[in-house]
Amino acid sequence: MKAEFVNPFLTSMTNVLTTMAQIDSQPGKPTVKKTSTASGVVTGIIGMAGEQLKGSFAVSFSEPVIFAITKRMLGEEVSSVDETVIDMVGELTNMATGGAKALLAEQGFEFDMAVPVMISGKDHRIEHSSSGPTIVLPFNTEYGDFFIEVSFIPAA
Amino acid sequence: MKAEFVNPFLTSMTNVLTTMAQIDSQPGKPTVKKTSTASGVVTGIIGMAGEQLKGSFAVSFSEPVIFAITKRMLGEEVSSVDETVIDMVGELTNMATGGAKALLAEQGFEFDMAVPVMISGKDHRIEHSSSGPTIVLPFNTEYGDFFIEVSFIPAA
Repeated sequence: MKAEFVNPFLTSMTNVLTTMAQIDSQPGKPTVKKTSTASGVVTGIIGMAGEQLKGSFAVSFSEPVIFAITKRMLGEEVSSVDETVIDMVGELTNMATGGAKALLAEQGFEFDMAVPVMISGKDHRIEHSSSGPTIVLPFNTEYGDFFIEVSFIPAA
Repeated sequence: MKAEFVNPFLTSMTNVLTTMAQIDSQPGKPTVKKTSTASGVVTGIIGMAGEQLKGSFAVSFSEPVIFAITKRMLGEEVSSVDETVIDMVGELTNMATGGAKALLAEQGFEFDMAVPVMISGKDHRIEHSSSGPTIVLPFNTEYGDFFIEVSFIPAA
């Protein structure tokens, strides 16, 4: 997997948060994931499948960050990872992936998107099979950190 | 989503466990998921994307079940959800989805598969966005229970 495949997700994720929630996010340094990452309390995962490549995108939020995004996007105060928050994570996962899909198409990589699946829980960890590298990218916001993970391998 | 789309996953999952691990599994009654499900300690999730439908498949294992499968498939005794177990869950997710993909193709539904992502942790819950129904199917084995979740919606 080329590390450049991460840039469309970086760009799309920051765009979504800026335009939809008026929240600025500063991406940190992308790293190749070596071990499982302790994630946020809620994670959205979506698969992408194309003729050349197949992969997955995950975005994991801490409570303060996702609560702030939910308040700014819906005007609703939330204080637990309830159905509203889960649906918000699903929408953000869809929007970020949709934006990245459009940017990847400009590079000649066409994908169909799966449906997002959300995982919640205080101690969940995201792990990828050893079939290919995973790139992890942390983001910082005024409300705390979140991170995305991108993993692509050649389609069989 | 037609409940019939669950049958290829049911068939494929039981086939994989029977042929690869010599473990018999009895499927329970499929239900439409109403609330988030308390899952096992390790879950494999994979996206499928096609021109007609897009969806996701998840399989979640308790420790006794995945430890027994790992021992039978690899001959290795495992006692924690380590890298070996994570990779085993990834392989099982891939194999079950690959088998279901072949069965769905016989019905005229073509899909490309994404890559599996695994989630571990004692308290993680799997939740789906409200864009479509999710079918949950429990399985019973001599080592305990596991369950699969299948969610498909029309591709945009």
